[in-house]
Amino acid sequence: MAFSERVTRLKSSLIREILAAAQRPEMMSFAGGLPAETMLPQSEWAQMPRSIGQYGMSEGEPQLREALAAQARALGIACEASQVMIVSGSQQTLDLAAKLYIDKGTEILLEAPTYLAALQIFQLFGADCLTVPLCADGPDLDVLRQRLQRHAPSFAYLIPTFQNPSAVRYSENARDAVAALLDEFNVTLIEDEPYRDLTFDGGSARPIAGRLKRASWIYTGTVSKTLMPGLRVGFLIASPDLFPHLLKLKQAADLHTNRVGQWQALQWIGSERYAQHLDELRTFYRTRRDQFEAALQRHFSDLAQWNSPQGGLFFWLKLNQTLDTRTVLNAALAQNVAFMPGEPFFTDPDANPGYLRLNFSHIDPQRLDEGLRRLAGVIKQAQAALAA
Amino acid sequence: MAFSERVTRLKSSLIREILAAAQRPEMMSFAGGLPAETMLPQSEWAQMPRSIGQYGMSEGEPQLREALAAQARALGIACEASQVMIVSGSQQTLDLAAKLYIDKGTEILLEAPTYLAALQIFQLFGADCLTVPLCADGPDLDVLRQRLQRHAPSFAYLIPTFQNPSAVRYSENARDAVAALLDEFNVTLIEDEPYRDLTFDGGSARPIAGRLKRASWIYTGTVSKTLMPGLRVGFLIASPDLFPHLLKLKQAADLHTNRVGQWQALQWIGSERYAQHLDELRTFYRTRRDQFEAALQRHFSDLAQWNSPQGGLFFWLKLNQTLDTRTVLNAALAQNVAFMPGEPFFTDPDANPGYLRLNFSHIDPQRLDEGLRRLAGVIKQAQAALAA
Repeated sequence: MAFSERVTRLKSSLIREILAAAQRPEMMSFAGGLPAETMLPQSEWAQMPRSIGQYGMSEGEPQLREALAAQARALGIACEASQVMIVSGSQQTLDLAAKLYIDKGTEILLEAPTYLAALQIFQLFGADCLTVPLCADGPDLDVLRQRLQRHAPSFAYLIPTFQNPSAVRYSENARDAVAALLDEFNVTLIEDEPYRDLTFDGGSARPIAGRLKRASWIYTGTVSKTLMPGLRVGFLIASPDLFPHLLKLKQAADLHTNRVGQWQALQWIGSERYAQHLDELRTFYRTRRDQFEAALQRHFSDLAQWNSPQGGLFFWLKLNQTLDTRTVLNAALAQNVAFMPGEPFFTDPDANPGYLRLNFSHIDPQRLDEGLRRLAGVIKQAQAALAA
Repeated sequence: MAFSERVTRLKSSLIREILAAAQRPEMMSFAGGLPAETMLPQSEWAQMPRSIGQYGMSEGEPQLREALAAQARALGIACEASQVMIVSGSQQTLDLAAKLYIDKGTEILLEAPTYLAALQIFQLFGADCLTVPLCADGPDLDVLRQRLQRHAPSFAYLIPTFQNPSAVRYSENARDAVAALLDEFNVTLIEDEPYRDLTFDGGSARPIAGRLKRASWIYTGTVSKTLMPGLRVGFLIASPDLFPHLLKLKQAADLHTNRVGQWQALQWIGSERYAQHLDELRTFYRTRRDQFEAALQRHFSDLAQWNSPQGGLFFWLKLNQTLDTRTVLNAALAQNVAFMPGEPFFTDPDANPGYLRLNFSHIDPQRLDEGLRRLAGVIKQAQAALAA
């Protein structure tokens, strides 16, 4: 059996296994990034033309590209519809970017921690991952400059708005400083923003892609967190030098994104109805965040530190007493509690023990308190066993 | 700008450019593999549950996997639903297979000619392509044995039923012989069957995957040619040794296939309504084939040779007087006629001049005769100019 060399780096995906376990109805899950089931909007399909069943363009539906370009311009990204491509969920943007940039040993720059599935695909292609630690309002700028002085990464992959997993939102200053550094060293930006619209304090900082003067960039987003992930409709917007390559890679990957989902997304993007849905969603998740934080205070105040997330779907906890949280996952699952250990979000998990990512959007509020109580119990027990 | 090494092999896609030109309403297109617009079925969506909007499993919808496994067993492929994965069109199977097998310089085995988009993705990943010429009823078996004796390809990619572009259908004997050779040399089979159901003489030979005793295999199909390509719903079925790797690669590529399209496909696969739709489709395309062949007789009988296709969507013409058909593409487009030059379907296009692939399913029958008349004229003119 002669597999490719990259298959040696094909990790057993912890997140897939946890999510599979979390499917069990009795499970109290803090694991995934799933929208609340009750907030999936009712969708209408009766008006969809039959011609949507035919093959479409690799770029995506022209009207949807126009609508997304208009939305991006309103955020401060100078772009035309010709720079917009519809992809099969923003995860596909990462696959296309990996193909465009990464050979074995290619240096890339990531936040620490960073999005698990990004790490997975970049490492599969053989990337050599440089990291910059995240502070409360953005990356450590001194370390970032150092990395750029000493290395020439092919791109920097950043999630500046309600980062997954840390919930960090870069400040205005951090965004300007990062843009200036990427311009200075001419390093391509890949900016991933699935959570931008889920803001709880109304804050909406201009994307870093809109602050660049020189560096190439790919900006990516999705309707998965705000509309319906089951549509698998995401998008990327790229600087004109990159777009033609990405388009050919998209065609080779799956010809084009499903048109049924694109048609449905088009019924929402830019509409009054969508604005209203987003308002309801923000209110709903803000309430869930507050309920979650109250329960955290009850069960984790002596166990861990965290910042209250101003958007997104996650709390990021750092345990006061270090413990590799991967070691308590099975004990938690045995008590019907699923969570994401924080270690795999780092390129060097063993060097970063003691973090948990807890999703607050999906769990039934009736079971929230019991779930966190059990999770705290499992952690205390493991820490006591270590101390003994 | 530091792109990956593979980007140097990212070809400008002739097919994408031709299809873009073919979008113009005045164009008479023999280029794509598009279903006839009038044969896209009316789809109903009112019963789709709201929960389809949520994230799904990377494997695909359990019921759809069951239905496809049952269909494959009926064709003679011993398999369980656990071996079935739903993919974003069968093109994605090729992307996943490329990731699983191909490093730069990896030897793989292909038919000559073969499917253009397969060649594109395999070469993008750096494959070293060995080829076996196709005869009227399958590959040249002597050459196949020679190749397997002298090389150890990571897989053989074959399209045994109404091959694209050649329309060849492997005979029973050829299928048995190929299976025996792949078993003997333990070479993995990738069997691509988008056109199986579009049979005009009712013939339905058992897939080669169902004849293997030892070699690993991936069998792939799609609803694109029989239902709606716009759904982007394809599937793969793999031997159990390969499935876990393919599943992780699928998750890294786009998490899962869109659930809306999967739900719609499930309303059809295995149903009485689908069987009836397939019957209508076969009758419709058989008539189109006959009309097309009559027009070919009028305009190409002194220009080219062809076999009448017993299924699929294409005529494959070999010109009597050799001419690189890529050189007449612009002249044809200028006369509002689009076609696929045959040369790019070979790994060595320059060594295989004088073929055309003509799609007969999509063109308006009212314009068929005029389109072929113009195309013949363009070819004659170019041949005359060469002879002068």
